[in-house]
Amino acid sequence: MPSPKPRTSNLEPHLYPVIMAGGSGTRFWPLSRHLFPKQLLRIIGDETLIQQTMRRVVHEAPAERVMISTNPAQAESIRIQLGEWKDALKDNFVLEPEGRNTAPAIALVALELIRRDPEAVMLVVPADHIVKGQQDFNAAVELASRLAMEGYLVTFGIKPIRPETGYGYIRPNKKMTILKEGKLKGHPVSRFVEKPNAAKAAQYVKAKDFYWNSGMFVWRAATVLEEIGRHQPKLSQGIERIRELMRAGASRSAIDEEYRTLTPVSIDTGVMEKSSKAAVVPVCFQWSDVGSWGSLDEVAPKDKAGNVVGGRVVDLGSQRSIVYGDRRVVATIGLMDMVVVDTPDATLVCPKSRAQDVKRIVEILKQQGAPEHLEHLTVHRPWGSYTVLEEGDGYKVKRVTVKPGGRLSLQMHHRRSEHWVVITGTARVTRGDEVFDLQVGQSTAIPVETRHRLENPGRDMLHIIEVQNGPYLGEDDIVRFQDDYGRGAEAPRSLKVPKC
Amino acid sequence: MPSPKPRTSNLEPHLYPVIMAGGSGTRFWPLSRHLFPKQLLRIIGDETLIQQTMRRVVHEAPAERVMISTNPAQAESIRIQLGEWKDALKDNFVLEPEGRNTAPAIALVALELIRRDPEAVMLVVPADHIVKGQQDFNAAVELASRLAMEGYLVTFGIKPIRPETGYGYIRPNKKMTILKEGKLKGHPVSRFVEKPNAAKAAQYVKAKDFYWNSGMFVWRAATVLEEIGRHQPKLSQGIERIRELMRAGASRSAIDEEYRTLTPVSIDTGVMEKSSKAAVVPVCFQWSDVGSWGSLDEVAPKDKAGNVVGGRVVDLGSQRSIVYGDRRVVATIGLMDMVVVDTPDATLVCPKSRAQDVKRIVEILKQQGAPEHLEHLTVHRPWGSYTVLEEGDGYKVKRVTVKPGGRLSLQMHHRRSEHWVVITGTARVTRGDEVFDLQVGQSTAIPVETRHRLENPGRDMLHIIEVQNGPYLGEDDIVRFQDDYGRGAEAPRSLKVPKC
Repeated sequence: MPSPKPRTSNLEPHLYPVIMAGGSGTRFWPLSRHLFPKQLLRIIGDETLIQQTMRRVVHEAPAERVMISTNPAQAESIRIQLGEWKDALKDNFVLEPEGRNTAPAIALVALELIRRDPEAVMLVVPADHIVKGQQDFNAAVELASRLAMEGYLVTFGIKPIRPETGYGYIRPNKKMTILKEGKLKGHPVSRFVEKPNAAKAAQYVKAKDFYWNSGMFVWRAATVLEEIGRHQPKLSQGIERIRELMRAGASRSAIDEEYRTLTPVSIDTGVMEKSSKAAVVPVCFQWSDVGSWGSLDEVAPKDKAGNVVGGRVVDLGSQRSIVYGDRRVVATIGLMDMVVVDTPDATLVCPKSRAQDVKRIVEILKQQGAPEHLEHLTVHRPWGSYTVLEEGDGYKVKRVTVKPGGRLSLQMHHRRSEHWVVITGTARVTRGDEVFDLQVGQSTAIPVETRHRLENPGRDMLHIIEVQNGPYLGEDDIVRFQDDYGRGAEAPRSLKVPKC
Repeated sequence: MPSPKPRTSNLEPHLYPVIMAGGSGTRFWPLSRHLFPKQLLRIIGDETLIQQTMRRVVHEAPAERVMISTNPAQAESIRIQLGEWKDALKDNFVLEPEGRNTAPAIALVALELIRRDPEAVMLVVPADHIVKGQQDFNAAVELASRLAMEGYLVTFGIKPIRPETGYGYIRPNKKMTILKEGKLKGHPVSRFVEKPNAAKAAQYVKAKDFYWNSGMFVWRAATVLEEIGRHQPKLSQGIERIRELMRAGASRSAIDEEYRTLTPVSIDTGVMEKSSKAAVVPVCFQWSDVGSWGSLDEVAPKDKAGNVVGGRVVDLGSQRSIVYGDRRVVATIGLMDMVVVDTPDATLVCPKSRAQDVKRIVEILKQQGAPEHLEHLTVHRPWGSYTVLEEGDGYKVKRVTVKPGGRLSLQMHHRRSEHWVVITGTARVTRGDEVFDLQVGQSTAIPVETRHRLENPGRDMLHIIEVQNGPYLGEDDIVRFQDDYGRGAEAPRSLKVPKC
């Protein structure tokens, strides 16, 4: 995605972008999964949504000041995708041990920021929205920051282009302008309306004095904590206990335990709608929360017939449809306003108008214990990735890709043996006390309970086929002796996530 | 499929069922492929269409008298599917070296039958139609056989249930009844109409004196050859040359060469419509040629909402739709009159009304040289089957299944090495001069240019994962030294078909 260089002057020195990256990934299923939510997808352009978001906010502050709010299950994937800013972001991940909606998540980041800089101003942005128009975004952030310094909770108002019932609407008090810069103005909020019915929504669009709540906010960390204290006193008490624990240098697990006791509440309904300090800056950059497959139309390039098409698609006369394929052939004939999404292990077909119901499909799969709601057949790791080619009774076949210089942990399995055949590159294998290299077409067997490690000592990618045999083939049958990426058995992780 | 035992009395001693099994398999893509046409599919019930057809006609004559008309590319798959009648059918395959439509194919079988029995009566049935009502079918065949003995070319007329424009229509001359048995009557044909327009078709359905041409025929082999001679003299001359070659004991390749010179012509338009000997027996058994995905409705069981569903389908509120999946999840929401067919390497989505256009998709894939028009990732062999799990630059991964007692040919590859890992069962491996057994979790490597063989000496199925490495991985890089299934390098095959 071509993008101008981040500005280096005029930056508000206390501004800290906060990327909210805890999405659950149900509405873009089957491309998104519980462990691979929308923010990690390359939906339009060459970069994923979180990469685009990061590139957007480093125009507002240096990467060292960008905070990532997420959960342990997604942190690793995010670190991989934001590898370009690896060093800058090293200590900037704030992990929710369990989802408690946005207010507690924001409070947790605010506590950390106040510890670093009592004057901190937060620019809160979801990781999975699309914004077009960097300069307009910059200008809006600048004005909002000034409003924030004056004690306002600022949101960006988006001009509504359809009677969407899934969003919140904001009415500014246009009689009062708090601040003005060129065409941009900041107003107090006179009214919030969350998810209106269709008739109301149509009325708001027509009235032209309502704006969509973009879910992006600017405020002082201190202000938002005060306002949480005022409108969510119970939550605030929990936050204060966490602040005490932090001050006392308590362990991560003690803080996590306290966090889990918090009641979930969203910052919009729990704080913004109640606060007298709410302000809105109507903005003119292009914005989409790409909330479902049906909304891709707003942002993705279309062919002459209005179709958004990707992958190996063979189509005869479809119109206004979204067809996403991958390596498999997807043949479509005469579709009208349909969505077809084909992934290696799951396919979705529905009219655009029903795309919101995909979350019900994900719910059903979750109830069935079907792995297709949880993750993809291809799983990314710091050292590369693996793809499950087939899984059956007592065996699993994977293609494992290791980046140049990458290596898996030194590990052992109690219940499975493995065979490795090199298909591209050179593999350095540790097996028991031996260390040896394998070239293309060579293979080795790793018996059960044997320490082993796979490493790519070359300059090209290494690809191997791994055949696992054993009565139990779960990713959690792993004893890790050494790991280059700090993924030890003792590492504090709040969610059990398979690793290898 | 529950089916009464074949009758053993009342059989016409000169009746020879002829199963026409040379379909090209485009209209049921992606479930059917060029090398795996509709007749080989399990579309409804537990048996494939050709298995159901075979089970139907062994009510009319012993299996030893059933002839199979097909082509070399499909013969092996058919032999595998008709394995229950393997010995009876051993010498009953009549292979067209190249498709020349139905008249030449039928003539070729007629020549062979006259050689065996000058009084032969042929019951010609397509391998891929569905018939329900065995007793009604028996009665119709019996009456038609008697008509055939009197020199008629008999077809079965099906009562039309919709104004189908893809079929031929027959008008019997109901004023004349040639033969009668209970409610069944045989009439001369007064008129044939091939593929009428929609208005005509609607008129014929309303008129109630037109019948669909079922494409099933009964006639004396001698009669049909005479009538071909009368109405297709040029074709007939070619047939006579083939008869001479057969009499002179010419080689298979000489006969094939002559056959290739024949002009393609269908038995319906080339002979039946022109002959004064055409007769029709209006029948009352249920019939469908399941000509496209859209026609499955007529024969397949439906749920309450009118959907025909198979595989791992998760649906929300679809109606009158056809959703065929396999091992992958197929999620459908609110589909109306749609077809969704999901296979391991290709997916089809279209409205039922456009299902006929699937053949255009197949044509496009063929032009692209895409393998998805030709065969499935799973390919059946006499010894078992293999499934391609992944194919990439310089490597291919297969799961190979060998039946108990089955073994692949003793073979060698010039350009690829192979690794085998046993995942179920016991493998007996020949590698160079060694012969050894491998158990689950054991593996071996087969270097290039090394004679090898894989065999299942056990009582359970053998499954191995094979990883191939090499610059060329085509199935035709094979030197075969010995084969249990008569598949030598020198075997006369008119079509190049990959084997292993």
